[in-house]
Amino acid sequence: MTWNDWLAEQAAAREAAGLTRRLKPRAYDDGVIDLAGNDYLGLAKHPAVTAAAAAAAVRWGGGAAASRLVTGSLGIHAELETELAAYLGQPAALVFSTGYHANLSIVSALADKDTLIVSDAHVHASLIDATRLARAAVTVTPHNDVAAVDAALAGSTRALVLVESIYSVLGDAAPLADLAAVCERHGALLIVDEAHGLGVHGAGLVAQADLAGQDHVIVTATLSKALGSQGGAVLGSSALIEHLVNRARPFIFDTGLAPASAAAALGALRLLEADADATDRIRRRVEGFASRAGVEAPAGAVTSIPMPTPQAALAAAEACAAEGVRVGCFRPPSVPDGISRLRVTANAGLSDEDWQRATDIVIKVAEAHR
Amino acid sequence: MTWNDWLAEQAAAREAAGLTRRLKPRAYDDGVIDLAGNDYLGLAKHPAVTAAAAAAAVRWGGGAAASRLVTGSLGIHAELETELAAYLGQPAALVFSTGYHANLSIVSALADKDTLIVSDAHVHASLIDATRLARAAVTVTPHNDVAAVDAALAGSTRALVLVESIYSVLGDAAPLADLAAVCERHGALLIVDEAHGLGVHGAGLVAQADLAGQDHVIVTATLSKALGSQGGAVLGSSALIEHLVNRARPFIFDTGLAPASAAAALGALRLLEADADATDRIRRRVEGFASRAGVEAPAGAVTSIPMPTPQAALAAAEACAAEGVRVGCFRPPSVPDGISRLRVTANAGLSDEDWQRATDIVIKVAEAHR
Repeated sequence: MTWNDWLAEQAAAREAAGLTRRLKPRAYDDGVIDLAGNDYLGLAKHPAVTAAAAAAAVRWGGGAAASRLVTGSLGIHAELETELAAYLGQPAALVFSTGYHANLSIVSALADKDTLIVSDAHVHASLIDATRLARAAVTVTPHNDVAAVDAALAGSTRALVLVESIYSVLGDAAPLADLAAVCERHGALLIVDEAHGLGVHGAGLVAQADLAGQDHVIVTATLSKALGSQGGAVLGSSALIEHLVNRARPFIFDTGLAPASAAAALGALRLLEADADATDRIRRRVEGFASRAGVEAPAGAVTSIPMPTPQAALAAAEACAAEGVRVGCFRPPSVPDGISRLRVTANAGLSDEDWQRATDIVIKVAEAHR
Repeated sequence: MTWNDWLAEQAAAREAAGLTRRLKPRAYDDGVIDLAGNDYLGLAKHPAVTAAAAAAAVRWGGGAAASRLVTGSLGIHAELETELAAYLGQPAALVFSTGYHANLSIVSALADKDTLIVSDAHVHASLIDATRLARAAVTVTPHNDVAAVDAALAGSTRALVLVESIYSVLGDAAPLADLAAVCERHGALLIVDEAHGLGVHGAGLVAQADLAGQDHVIVTATLSKALGSQGGAVLGSSALIEHLVNRARPFIFDTGLAPASAAAALGALRLLEADADATDRIRRRVEGFASRAGVEAPAGAVTSIPMPTPQAALAAAEACAAEGVRVGCFRPPSVPDGISRLRVTANAGLSDEDWQRATDIVIKVAEAHR
């Protein structure tokens, strides 16, 4: 089969399954209320954040111009790393150009063929790809099953356990205290992705569980969700960060994070630190909405509404859009259990009026398509 | 061995080999002349580029707020993709958050266990990691050896051949016309990373070889070198781009490129299009400098000066820095042949006076350390 025939065959199979995705670029002034993104606190468009990004672009340039190890480490990176570590209660931080790279890096720089990786069944694609890069032995454990993690670690040396503090699609939280205890007992490292925990729960669930700064618990985070920017970070001991600087290929061989993105994240972080009420605002919206939608309230900021088919999920999302509300639509392969969903973000940056109006529309449309 | 002991052992081994790397964040106003970065045309700090980045941050926000497939596709992405494809003479383009992801994506979305990947021995870490993600059979061929590629492809179906148009460390060019002919004969796809070709050679070496827009030749590019920003791109047929949108995990599961970075790259692209003389300016500097340094002139913008040891390379780079000139220092594992080097970029954005003064210093210091 030629490559062209193969591409055509793949496209036809997607189309037949109702799974073709198309990019729909949005305008900056489309007036749509966004309940689809991960800008949980509405900080991406906060004037202090955009002004910080703009000033950094002018001061530092459009890009870092090189790998962090050559000449691409900027003062703005160091400033962000210092403040991020302090906010999360960690000894040190290292910033990456995307959250994906933070996860690829921490796993592939620590694991080799003698390492066991124990991975929760629902972890993000970036952690799954990280295990592929690492070439280590991998055991996938049932979702949030601490006993299975314990059993998998029996007799291991230098093992890694991969989890998220809050899982994206189902919105549930990991049993971090229990997982950390099991890891400590086996001498394993627990790697916790706080992509959906940071900001939604202040400094994150690792900090809330009093696990921040412990040598056997490593945190990865993204700058592109609650912090409204782009990039990622790994937080842990200074020895760990030094190891990543020297060994993490997606760090060493990548251009440093753009100055504007580093500054936007730093600006958002400072707003977050000053806004002690943010977590409560999100909780109230999440619980109110989940109750009205007749689904369980998630631990994070994203409520999922199961839909009967991928096509129904897509049609409902399009019906919301027609009424001026953007919601997410999760279909295979982005769901761990094959069930398509509407994905509704409790955006704490919206006014009460916009939130009420938008969620009224979503509830009405979801009912009509279930 | 505990994880802490393992980290300490790794650090001690690096230190003993003289290979420890440390981040040295720079100030925006340090007054140093930079010959270390990949901002080949000096566009990262061009006022039109930084103004475009700043305006986009204010208009669109600090981040794209979601995956490109959810709500993170912005008008500024589409605009960049259209103009990038037109400049490179390609039917379509897709923009990624880093060049690393462009390479991870194109290989892992096309290759499966039935695919043969033939990879040049000197390709970038991102292409090597891409082959690991793809789980395909991989044959590594000697550097720039067309006959070896031909032999490796014998009897293959749906094979990929991975090369760069210009290789980073040695600075030599790939025999693209011959490689493309071999690929066409075997029905294979040639994937050409133009990271160091775009801008340095106008629209790149694929375009110069009249191979742009041919179905069996795919281009990947970075926005973080000659375009002075952050991000990457894949350029090829519309069917290919649609395939990536639907299948490339590092695209689907990553937040879209930050608006400021997309705008900076677009601003730089427009300057590049308007500056027909840029390639000649770089060539003159490269050839003059290589001649003075007593090394062969590279095909790209980076001249490498071999040094006897990693320690000598580091000492020379530090001596240049002490005189106000930043040069790169390539040491294992960033070199394909184990030889440490000073890495000197012909930055076409510098004034003739600065370029002369900086290169005088580099030549003097390199002599003293060889």
